[in-house]
Amino acid sequence: MKNEERNGAVVLLSGGMDSAALLHFVARRLGPGRVHALSFFYGQKHAREMEMARWQAGRAGVAVHREVDLSFFGRLVGEASALTGAARNVPDQADLRPADLQQPPTYVPNRNLVFLSLAAAYAESAGLPEVYYGAQTQDCYGYWDCTPEFVERLNGVLRLNRGSRVAIRAPFAGKSKAEVLKIGLAMQVDYTHTWTCYRGGEKPCGLCPSCAERIRAFKKAGIADPGRGDSA
Amino acid sequence: MKNEERNGAVVLLSGGMDSAALLHFVARRLGPGRVHALSFFYGQKHAREMEMARWQAGRAGVAVHREVDLSFFGRLVGEASALTGAARNVPDQADLRPADLQQPPTYVPNRNLVFLSLAAAYAESAGLPEVYYGAQTQDCYGYWDCTPEFVERLNGVLRLNRGSRVAIRAPFAGKSKAEVLKIGLAMQVDYTHTWTCYRGGEKPCGLCPSCAERIRAFKKAGIADPGRGDSA
Repeated sequence: MKNEERNGAVVLLSGGMDSAALLHFVARRLGPGRVHALSFFYGQKHAREMEMARWQAGRAGVAVHREVDLSFFGRLVGEASALTGAARNVPDQADLRPADLQQPPTYVPNRNLVFLSLAAAYAESAGLPEVYYGAQTQDCYGYWDCTPEFVERLNGVLRLNRGSRVAIRAPFAGKSKAEVLKIGLAMQVDYTHTWTCYRGGEKPCGLCPSCAERIRAFKKAGIADPGRGDSA
Repeated sequence: MKNEERNGAVVLLSGGMDSAALLHFVARRLGPGRVHALSFFYGQKHAREMEMARWQAGRAGVAVHREVDLSFFGRLVGEASALTGAARNVPDQADLRPADLQQPPTYVPNRNLVFLSLAAAYAESAGLPEVYYGAQTQDCYGYWDCTPEFVERLNGVLRLNRGSRVAIRAPFAGKSKAEVLKIGLAMQVDYTHTWTCYRGGEKPCGLCPSCAERIRAFKKAGIADPGRGDSA
């Protein structure tokens, strides 16, 4: 194993706003030649993000971009999430009830732990000591598996490894989406090549919880969405 | 979701000795109608265990036996493990060096965390509060992801879930393979329908670390292996 590889990192890249910013953040920090981007298609109802992930990986010039087909995962969790269940609709942000905000219908059971476990397995195998994860703090709703505490406890598990240990890094955990957006804008991330909408239509719907978060983030950052938000 | 389902459990079933004992242990405790057995083919070099898993699930009469094809995982970790790497050979137990014993060549990077994350995702989606895991304490060598501490820390991660929490149960963690075997024998588990050997030959090799553990366990339990160990 070459030394440069041992100093590299895996970046979880969905093709959304946060992971696009993360990819460029890590590529600047470590050099793109030390970055392996990893994208999962997990059987969600649309794959609009994947083309964005591919574009961002190319733009960042990373050493490796690996796309892994986990469509079996959507069948495993099925109707338990609005993102994978054929019989379920993604709600509008306006229709979320207060009780939904702790664990919204768009939560996918344990998906992020599955992604991070796989990413850590790949990193360990490839001799890379770090996995970067773009979790941030939503304003309107929340997922337990995006919190700083989740990352900290998972690192507690991974520290038990007796060989080549891998650590999860979540530099945006605890930051708001608007703060992450500002970091991305400062790095000239091209947000027209990110996909946010939970619905996979021709254009972003502008109404789902994810679109609502994007709109709010651009508003807070004080700039117009260049495209692929509702303003497109 | 029906109440009986909420009281059920997922059992990770590889088709080896320990998970066969676990399956019957849980089926007796909860009733087989409340058990969902889950088996993963992860791209290891042979699938001899899978037919054993199928047989044991049928014998136990569990409600569901789900086989999931994770062969992509073997490609993801590749040569990092002797169980998945095409260019690597499984060593004989006698050839293991002392330094290997903490993390042997047959260790598969982060595999068990991947399995448990997927099992927890399935359990959460199906409304089952528990995942049973057959980890035990090897005599001759060890895996960090089979220890009681690993299970405890992973449960610390899963407890952060704000909705339907899932707990990992590892009733054999901390027990030796011989102790688990005795539990299985007391339940009349049919060990001729378990597969142990890391090599996928017509007959068990009797020399690999896994065969060595099976031989030692039967010896300690004071009974002859009925078959599918080296005595076959």
